[in-house]
Amino acid sequence: MRVARLYGAGTIRVEEAPKPQPGPGETLLRIRRVGICGSDRHYYRHGGIGEDKMTLPLILGHEVAGIVEAVGKGAQRVQEGQRVALDPAQPCGHCEFCRTGHPNLCENLRFLGAWPVDGGMQEWLVYPADLLVPLPQAVSLNEGVLLETLGVALHAAYLGKIQVGNSVAILGAGPVGLLIEQVAKLSGAGRIFVTDKLENRLEKARAFGADEALQVSDVREVSQEILRITAGRGVDVVFEAADAGETVQTAATIARPGGTIVIVGIAPRGPIYIPSNLARRKGLTVKFSRRMKHTYPTAMNLLLQQRVNLAELVTHHFPLDEVQKAFDTVADYRDGVLKAMIDL
Amino acid sequence: MRVARLYGAGTIRVEEAPKPQPGPGETLLRIRRVGICGSDRHYYRHGGIGEDKMTLPLILGHEVAGIVEAVGKGAQRVQEGQRVALDPAQPCGHCEFCRTGHPNLCENLRFLGAWPVDGGMQEWLVYPADLLVPLPQAVSLNEGVLLETLGVALHAAYLGKIQVGNSVAILGAGPVGLLIEQVAKLSGAGRIFVTDKLENRLEKARAFGADEALQVSDVREVSQEILRITAGRGVDVVFEAADAGETVQTAATIARPGGTIVIVGIAPRGPIYIPSNLARRKGLTVKFSRRMKHTYPTAMNLLLQQRVNLAELVTHHFPLDEVQKAFDTVADYRDGVLKAMIDL
Amino acid sequence: MRVARLYGAGTIRVEEAPKPQPGPGETLLRIRRVGICGSDRHYYRHGGIGEDKMTLPLILGHEVAGIVEAVGKGAQRVQEGQRVALDPAQPCGHCEFCRTGHPNLCENLRFLGAWPVDGGMQEWLVYPADLLVPLPQAVSLNEGVLLETLGVALHAAYLGKIQVGNSVAILGAGPVGLLIEQVAKLSGAGRIFVTDKLENRLEKARAFGADEALQVSDVREVSQEILRITAGRGVDVVFEAADAGETVQTAATIARPGGTIVIVGIAPRGPIYIPSNLARRKGLTVKFSRRMKHTYPTAMNLLLQQRVNLAELVTHHFPLDEVQKAFDTVADYRDGVLKAMIDL
Amino acid sequence: MRVARLYGAGTIRVEEAPKPQPGPGETLLRIRRVGICGSDRHYYRHGGIGEDKMTLPLILGHEVAGIVEAVGKGAQRVQEGQRVALDPAQPCGHCEFCRTGHPNLCENLRFLGAWPVDGGMQEWLVYPADLLVPLPQAVSLNEGVLLETLGVALHAAYLGKIQVGNSVAILGAGPVGLLIEQVAKLSGAGRIFVTDKLENRLEKARAFGADEALQVSDVREVSQEILRITAGRGVDVVFEAADAGETVQTAATIARPGGTIVIVGIAPRGPIYIPSNLARRKGLTVKFSRRMKHTYPTAMNLLLQQRVNLAELVTHHFPLDEVQKAFDTVADYRDGVLKAMIDL
Repeated sequence: MRVARLYGAGTIRVEEAPKPQPGPGETLLRIRRVGICGSDRHYYRHGGIGEDKMTLPLILGHEVAGIVEAVGKGAQRVQEGQRVALDPAQPCGHCEFCRTGHPNLCENLRFLGAWPVDGGMQEWLVYPADLLVPLPQAVSLNEGVLLETLGVALHAAYLGKIQVGNSVAILGAGPVGLLIEQVAKLSGAGRIFVTDKLENRLEKARAFGADEALQVSDVREVSQEILRITAGRGVDVVFEAADAGETVQTAATIARPGGTIVIVGIAPRGPIYIPSNLARRKGLTVKFSRRMKHTYPTAMNLLLQQRVNLAELVTHHFPLDEVQKAFDTVADYRDGVLKAMIDL
Repeated sequence: MRVARLYGAGTIRVEEAPKPQPGPGETLLRIRRVGICGSDRHYYRHGGIGEDKMTLPLILGHEVAGIVEAVGKGAQRVQEGQRVALDPAQPCGHCEFCRTGHPNLCENLRFLGAWPVDGGMQEWLVYPADLLVPLPQAVSLNEGVLLETLGVALHAAYLGKIQVGNSVAILGAGPVGLLIEQVAKLSGAGRIFVTDKLENRLEKARAFGADEALQVSDVREVSQEILRITAGRGVDVVFEAADAGETVQTAATIARPGGTIVIVGIAPRGPIYIPSNLARRKGLTVKFSRRMKHTYPTAMNLLLQQRVNLAELVTHHFPLDEVQKAFDTVADYRDGVLKAMIDL
Repeated sequence: MRVARLYGAGTIRVEEAPKPQPGPGETLLRIRRVGICGSDRHYYRHGGIGEDKMTLPLILGHEVAGIVEAVGKGAQRVQEGQRVALDPAQPCGHCEFCRTGHPNLCENLRFLGAWPVDGGMQEWLVYPADLLVPLPQAVSLNEGVLLETLGVALHAAYLGKIQVGNSVAILGAGPVGLLIEQVAKLSGAGRIFVTDKLENRLEKARAFGADEALQVSDVREVSQEILRITAGRGVDVVFEAADAGETVQTAATIARPGGTIVIVGIAPRGPIYIPSNLARRKGLTVKFSRRMKHTYPTAMNLLLQQRVNLAELVTHHFPLDEVQKAFDTVADYRDGVLKAMIDL
Repeated sequence: MRVARLYGAGTIRVEEAPKPQPGPGETLLRIRRVGICGSDRHYYRHGGIGEDKMTLPLILGHEVAGIVEAVGKGAQRVQEGQRVALDPAQPCGHCEFCRTGHPNLCENLRFLGAWPVDGGMQEWLVYPADLLVPLPQAVSLNEGVLLETLGVALHAAYLGKIQVGNSVAILGAGPVGLLIEQVAKLSGAGRIFVTDKLENRLEKARAFGADEALQVSDVREVSQEILRITAGRGVDVVFEAADAGETVQTAATIARPGGTIVIVGIAPRGPIYIPSNLARRKGLTVKFSRRMKHTYPTAMNLLLQQRVNLAELVTHHFPLDEVQKAFDTVADYRDGVLKAMIDL
């Protein structure tokens, strides 16, 4: 079968590999669709992520949907032929953080497509049956793939503790930012601000109901604009969903006294700079959002009730052979790309 | 009367000024003692604080105790001859943040000894009667002065939400850090770590009950040592009470997954650097502590019940004429200074 | 001028009284509309409320809108001729609970139309200018009156901490219950259950978006029905918005383990019965909702954005002369009454 | 081997039973000591607990310590000859509440000595190895048994969210109440009130540091006394640790506006009565405490650091043959009994 392996910054090769066999409790999946996430983009651009040391090659891909082809001994909940999404997180279930209900902080977490665990960009994948999410008829493969992204957005939104009437700002209108926007809207947020550098993303933000979708050319300017609109008070809850660079400074500038900032973006280089005196004077709270926990059931319900729009986030499809082109498109924000899918 | 005016970085002059008169609701206080705080030290070293623009000269001093000499018309709660401490914060009482119970975030806050409000380093001061804290017989002037510092420590500790058994680290063993340590101890903290560069401060930390008082020569080393002692897990609640420089990175390194960092220190230069990938992976919460709210009654009770030790924090006394020497001593951490007092 | 005075259970008389004059900071209001609230109904039926001892007569009415007729010296924010709603709560601003941001728990609260403070059922009323809520053009008098009810619903909903996807039950579909339903919907609640004895109220509940509007004939039956629909799990957040009688037992029965019950209803007789073993086994949290705090700005915004429907709650209008008939209608739930208004 | 079986209210018989054998992952324990808990007392007095329907006989006992006699295949963490306490709760690990970190709310919980699971009052017991708590040398059998009680107290105290300086009342000075008192003291509580009907229990409460230990002869009187001492304000956090009868009314009476009540006691008959109007006016929060979660490590640490006193709670020892006498002693509060132990 064919697999797509990352060999270093900017280099992905499609290669042959032996087709795997499911063991007990496992399933063999025919992977059909894999989304390219912001973290995949980081891997591709930098040949790694954060300060992690890793040995390449690595198969990327954690936003994955496919079809159950074979069911290993004792595997329950799924049947051959079933369409499924994958929960990419495999927490240990036994560490302190798993036991206290925070599997996203698991000390022994294995995560599909995050080093050293190969991901979903391969034609067949063996995966534990109890981490599969069966897709009802009404849910498309694209939507199945994006359940994971919606889960990330839900987790971030929960951290923000949005109350009915709260003003909300989302800095960065990529797929995660746009889903946080949708969840904020669902949460009864008052005025919703969305900022991005790319006009096509802001158009989506407006379509999803942003009250103010502001293009960022100058960081200070956009902060001042938001402060002006809020009569100097600032915004109740700010989500940083870009790349945790200057946006963090914007976040601290526009948060109201006593406000909350949720950092969802991944900083390309390690440290982020927080304007400390500003943050201290306002008594801000900054929460770093780590993946998600317990969000799949709600994500699925929102989708089935058509209260979120996942389909509109998908702008591009590429066959596996064009995986490098797909990554280049995403890396450079070409062609108005928002969410690109690899079809297998 | 004599007043001490800051004219610029490193320059304080004692000058003559007219003795003021109390208006309605005010009192005339004969100031007797003023503590030098970390924020005063910032003013003295940098001729300002944070990025604030200000016009000097300015009279510093917000940790203040004195004696009521005259009571203006309609001023209640205090009598002539009474020993009092001053609550330096004068919130407006009407803005959104005052009304919702957060006077420390008041939009119109006036704060004694913070630009543009002259502070307590003058022989007589006119001050609103309802911001005075009468000192019972059992409370010394030194302790009265340090009620403010204890309030700051209580507020920070409340933000940390220490539970019985939680491990706690306090980075920086100045007066605020040592009081946070005392409050953490009172809160039933489990293992308490304190770090500082100065051995004499660590000795105090040990005397106040630190389980591990660690000297910082190399920042990485001390982080690794704390991780080693906690078997790699890290610490539940970390208080940054130094100068919000490298200590913030230590804080992120030693905080446990899901842990909380409370930033109390004032960064000399604006931004602080948070190791973002680390913070994100651990799902940390970072809270910036802003002064205090509603803490005086508890601070006074703890003092009267002898559950905190304020007296031991005072290492130096200087007469007003030696105010510059006092500031130099504090600025350079000379002579094992911890809390220096100006006696008037 | 004419006023309506409650003289005892079931007895209200319209009488003449001298027209009042505004003092400094006050306004004279020509009252135009007053809603009859559940607590007014309690006063009318029992000649009092709770175990309070009071001396009658008393003028009822705290849901009030009118027109500014004269402005006392120094009164700001309003002008003659302006349409306004009244915030009926007059907290002292100085007690512990006011200062810490909980004016609804004020120790010295005066509340319009709650003994010993005469309320709004009079043609003219003198009221502090800073407790008036100016009504924009787009807001009708009926809506102005119901801002108070919406505030009560918002406060209760905030206590429930509804998260996107949470299931919610509202027991009692009177005006408060129906507004809690609307706020729950706005908060992104998942499945919403509403129960009531009266079919016409359930129809409104359905119109406002209830997923399940269940008629209560037998309390056990409705509880079992809700448990059945939730596959035995129960409901995340339950609002008791009836009369805190058997509904409290329903609430404990249908709340999920770890769930929250918010008690909004007023128990006609003092104590309520909580099935303790059930509540203990599930580790429930029961919050008693006390009026509201800081909710007017959000209430007004929701109204202006047409995200809530207040107008549909008003079913009846009575002239002041028929005030007793109005109360009888409300007391007996006659004619499908939901919210009845007195027009002056 | 001998076992003690409850056959109905007031009837326990010591009988012979076959000695069990450990399976894989299990251990065979020689039980040495079993405490009689308030819930055991309920079983004994009423032949059941709450409204549960159950078939007797049942072996009681969930506060248990013993010695590992044999280790089944694959059982880890313990060795033959080791002294151990037992965690009596066996959550399923898979239900919603286990996964989200609330094993105390497990839908499928099995609990040692709670119907239908036989408990520890037998000479040998087979128990899962991973639910054993190894006892260090410094910990006595009595203390090992009482780790469970301490865990219950810690969980209740955590629910109360005691802050440094908070006033606390504990209604009921049985073993759980006295341990909540100790934890409240450790948490930095300000004034601590303890009430009970029995003077010998109040003596213990005073020895453990209660500021006010008040004998309850008349419920109203004791409430008024506490209100008087607090100058009418009331108490920040109230723990009901008696039998959830009139004490609940005391709790509502003495809680301050906005205060919290934690219900720990087990109501002998189902419902408890909450004075609703009082609770509503004060905006109280009532939390029902369900067993405990994740508390063993902290409980053990506090014990090893000698920050809690468990030994002093044990007043009586009975051999297994006198188990009925032991229960009668506990049931009737005879001979100043606090915690009675069965020695096997």
